Amino acid sequence: MSMTEISDLLSNQTKGFSLQQKFYKDPGIYQQEMDRIFMKSWLYAGHVSQIKNVGEYFLYEMDTESVIIIREDKDTVNALMNVCRHRGSRVCLQASGTQKLLACPYHGWTYERSGALRGANHTYPDFDKSGYALKTVNLKIFHGMIFINFDKDPISFDAIEKDLDECLIPYCLDKTKIAHKQSYPIKSNWKLAVENYCECYHCVPSHPEYAEAHGRSFPEEEMQGLLKQVMEKGEKIGLSNSSINYDWLDSGGVGIDRSYDRYPLLKGFVTGSRGGKPLAPLLGDIKGYDGGTADMHIGPITFYLAYCDHVVIYHFKPLTLDTADCEITWLVNERAEEGKDYSLKELIWLWDVTTIADKCIIENNQKGVNSRFYQPGPFTKMEEFEQGFVDWYVDLMK
Amino acid sequence: MSMTEISDLLSNQTKGFSLQQKFYKDPGIYQQEMDRIFMKSWLYAGHVSQIKNVGEYFLYEMDTESVIIIREDKDTVNALMNVCRHRGSRVCLQASGTQKLLACPYHGWTYERSGALRGANHTYPDFDKSGYALKTVNLKIFHGMIFINFDKDPISFDAIEKDLDECLIPYCLDKTKIAHKQSYPIKSNWKLAVENYCECYHCVPSHPEYAEAHGRSFPEEEMQGLLKQVMEKGEKIGLSNSSINYDWLDSGGVGIDRSYDRYPLLKGFVTGSRGGKPLAPLLGDIKGYDGGTADMHIGPITFYLAYCDHVVIYHFKPLTLDTADCEITWLVNERAEEGKDYSLKELIWLWDVTTIADKCIIENNQKGVNSRFYQPGPFTKMEEFEQGFVDWYVDLMK
Amino acid sequence: MSMTEISDLLSNQTKGFSLQQKFYKDPGIYQQEMDRIFMKSWLYAGHVSQIKNVGEYFLYEMDTESVIIIREDKDTVNALMNVCRHRGSRVCLQASGTQKLLACPYHGWTYERSGALRGANHTYPDFDKSGYALKTVNLKIFHGMIFINFDKDPISFDAIEKDLDECLIPYCLDKTKIAHKQSYPIKSNWKLAVENYCECYHCVPSHPEYAEAHGRSFPEEEMQGLLKQVMEKGEKIGLSNSSINYDWLDSGGVGIDRSYDRYPLLKGFVTGSRGGKPLAPLLGDIKGYDGGTADMHIGPITFYLAYCDHVVIYHFKPLTLDTADCEITWLVNERAEEGKDYSLKELIWLWDVTTIADKCIIENNQKGVNSRFYQPGPFTKMEEFEQGFVDWYVDLMK
Repeated sequence: MSMTEISDLLSNQTKGFSLQQKFYKDPGIYQQEMDRIFMKSWLYAGHVSQIKNVGEYFLYEMDTESVIIIREDKDTVNALMNVCRHRGSRVCLQASGTQKLLACPYHGWTYERSGALRGANHTYPDFDKSGYALKTVNLKIFHGMIFINFDKDPISFDAIEKDLDECLIPYCLDKTKIAHKQSYPIKSNWKLAVENYCECYHCVPSHPEYAEAHGRSFPEEEMQGLLKQVMEKGEKIGLSNSSINYDWLDSGGVGIDRSYDRYPLLKGFVTGSRGGKPLAPLLGDIKGYDGGTADMHIGPITFYLAYCDHVVIYHFKPLTLDTADCEITWLVNERAEEGKDYSLKELIWLWDVTTIADKCIIENNQKGVNSRFYQPGPFTKMEEFEQGFVDWYVDLMK
Repeated sequence: MSMTEISDLLSNQTKGFSLQQKFYKDPGIYQQEMDRIFMKSWLYAGHVSQIKNVGEYFLYEMDTESVIIIREDKDTVNALMNVCRHRGSRVCLQASGTQKLLACPYHGWTYERSGALRGANHTYPDFDKSGYALKTVNLKIFHGMIFINFDKDPISFDAIEKDLDECLIPYCLDKTKIAHKQSYPIKSNWKLAVENYCECYHCVPSHPEYAEAHGRSFPEEEMQGLLKQVMEKGEKIGLSNSSINYDWLDSGGVGIDRSYDRYPLLKGFVTGSRGGKPLAPLLGDIKGYDGGTADMHIGPITFYLAYCDHVVIYHFKPLTLDTADCEITWLVNERAEEGKDYSLKELIWLWDVTTIADKCIIENNQKGVNSRFYQPGPFTKMEEFEQGFVDWYVDLMK
Repeated sequence: MSMTEISDLLSNQTKGFSLQQKFYKDPGIYQQEMDRIFMKSWLYAGHVSQIKNVGEYFLYEMDTESVIIIREDKDTVNALMNVCRHRGSRVCLQASGTQKLLACPYHGWTYERSGALRGANHTYPDFDKSGYALKTVNLKIFHGMIFINFDKDPISFDAIEKDLDECLIPYCLDKTKIAHKQSYPIKSNWKLAVENYCECYHCVPSHPEYAEAHGRSFPEEEMQGLLKQVMEKGEKIGLSNSSINYDWLDSGGVGIDRSYDRYPLLKGFVTGSRGGKPLAPLLGDIKGYDGGTADMHIGPITFYLAYCDHVVIYHFKPLTLDTADCEITWLVNERAEEGKDYSLKELIWLWDVTTIADKCIIENNQKGVNSRFYQPGPFTKMEEFEQGFVDWYVDLMK
């Protein structure tokens, strides 16, 4: 589909209705999305606990890209493109490891942890090593979370930092560790997966495990009373009362969505567990449970569920036009010991069961959207956030 | 391939020769076929015995489409598109079942068996339910067989009804049941599968099991004597002597091919069994075996073998440009009991072994057609019906 | 990609640097390559020992093509396209066998071993058998090796014959047999596989088994002393001292690359074995081991390693745009008996372990080349032959 055809399609899009079929099926649109969204946005790549020591690295992979996130020294972490400057081979083949130097397995070119080319045999006399460092991409560490941005001249991370800093302080996310990380591949266009995440209209019919415990499953106005209690209690245990909502068109630029929004748990639940009881030691400086939880959003494809005792990170990545990956990370207090302070099985239970259900839901959504008889349908009151995503997307593609 | 290129290709097609390679390989041509043939034709979807009771349904799936064939009440059967009007999810996920109401598993929108939207939570005040019924497609029940047509303004079914009614009466197909149904996926373009079905030139070299028993394996003129005997005997057992032949270009419109044509069995065979003996109780009002059988054809991709004691339905469906599905249904008298009145293994033996052989033949045909050195070859006298298909196809694509 | 776009891309290609990404990813370029290289070149198809007796045949398969290489009689071997002239079916389904006549499994058309149509049932009276022989492609037997060329008017094989004849005589390749043949499918564009074969810059970092024994792993100038010794000794055991180098742009035409180039083994190795000791009886008239080996090259995608006691043939074939096959054949003296005169396990050890390593290397090269951040890199002094390939390729595509 050419730019003109995309433009015509966009002008046919009715506000308040889901996207037209072509947006989920056209290869030309997919390429535009890669360029306009994924190559411009701040993307959650991993956590500092993965690379505590000098030389430790892990790979962040998305679409055709592979990035080496490596600790150069105590104060420096680099994001290097995993593409040898000689003939293009992947330099690191393992998903993580420790390397003093990075040696390409093909012809043995070696690079410093800064990316600088250190050695290359048998080159011609006029060869200038300084022109062949591994390419770098922008990297920002924020409360222990590592974000990267593929853009040469990326949008500033400052707005995220400024707006979310205060809310995040009590969680001490830089003092957490990854308890578990898992991929859930989904046979659908990435947008159907993100849209699914962006609304809780489906929570009651589809996620009994979540719905019985989380106020987000019900219209906001019904939650006002409970929310007030949570806010009061939250303040006492050290959590911020702020509600930050700079998502989608309100974010002021592509790739810097940011929000922090608390809402009540139900029936006496104190965290996202089976039964409602605590799952792990409290995070950071939090002094207790307030009966609530928070939704966070940083960049357009990363979402967070911040409980008092653990944080769940959802990161959505397109694999191809019609496949996507939902990558989930569970963070707990860095001092927590598995088996002693928390049960891994119980920790991941809720979001594992919920994501398995969503995978099925999303794939059946894609099947229906593929029909010639699919027609965009109307959003409801409980899909306002998803509608925000669609409005942003339509604006962005123009 | 553009319409102009398709047009040029068609003008290069020599009458009496097989189709040029591009017709089996080009995605643009495949899309045209979907629009011009599969979206316009009457397609066999299933049998009334599958949905005897109110609320019983089964899915008919073809290409990207899924249709819910559901019994609304005693007198009404509906064909509803399996695409929720909210955000497009599949509504029914199981291949068959019984449902009072149809509830979308995503957000819980519920529909009546008529397709009307019954309930949707949290919609905006101006939401008008009457605009969001499941879309319907045309449905026709003919002698117990359910046909659907995706066209908004479908060609009339009347010609099929008028021409085949008398021939079908003795079989009482509305009083049969499905003994077995099986898919045979084939790695080829759908046309090579249909062409294979449309000629018996290959029966002697490829299907010894069929050829030893069926007169169709030999030139028509050699069968005249035997056919006369069958016709005389057929009249006595209640079968029609008519030969109806409104296929392809003779059908008078796209999607209403219809034929009924009897021919003799050989060596004393009375049905399509291993050895020639009866397989199941006689169908309907048929009073015995006449030593013959009938070929039927309803719509362009559904073919029938009507023996006195069972009917075999072949339904061909494209899956992608280069894969197809051959779906076979075996019908027996509704009063017949498996194990007592018929052996399922023996019932399906002939057409199972024949289709397994054809799958291999057709796939090797596609491999050869893919070669740069493939060149359309001449049809023979025993491929007249296939040539009719090709002539019709070429005309249709113009 | 259109011809104009390919042309623009070619003009952006910097000499001395690896190819731009599109050359490894674009379907239009791949089609051009098929037409300009694979349909025009002399391709190694097999060895006469495979078809000693009348009626013996084997299939050579590449891309969409399948060719029947069959012995018609004592003096004649034919290359027949495996595409029935009736409706295009594959005629031979088995990879090898013996057939007096070739009968198509679909409708039973039978062909002579010359390809002539012998019989076809039920054809119309005006059918002229002489117009429906299996199509043939050019075939040339050279020192027992069978080459084919798909071009209607192929470039002459004479240059290969004239230049390599003398070098090949001592090996008596027509008196060898195939000890083993194996496919190594590679998930990469075919050019990355050929490029990998064309340089030994990677041998030291990637192939310790090869590098410790073969002088090719080091710059040519370091090998001059050893090479002199090998040449002197080689003369004594009957090998030619010639160095033939008509590869790539020096070949004088597409598809007739030819070279024979000797180089020393190291550390007292006499052949490409684990440890350096002989692997099999000496080939042909060779009277001993000279401590060297030879690289040969016939046509653009077939390479040879000629040791004194065995020959290894590398044949590279594209399967799709992004998959290729590396097919390796091990030839030994036809009188050698497995288990007695040679161990198959030891015979294939070196090039099996090396190719398994290369498969991994090449696939990781493709992954890196797929990145938006890949940029053609500079060749080194040890990649001159590969650079020759790239220069030839760029010239050819213009």
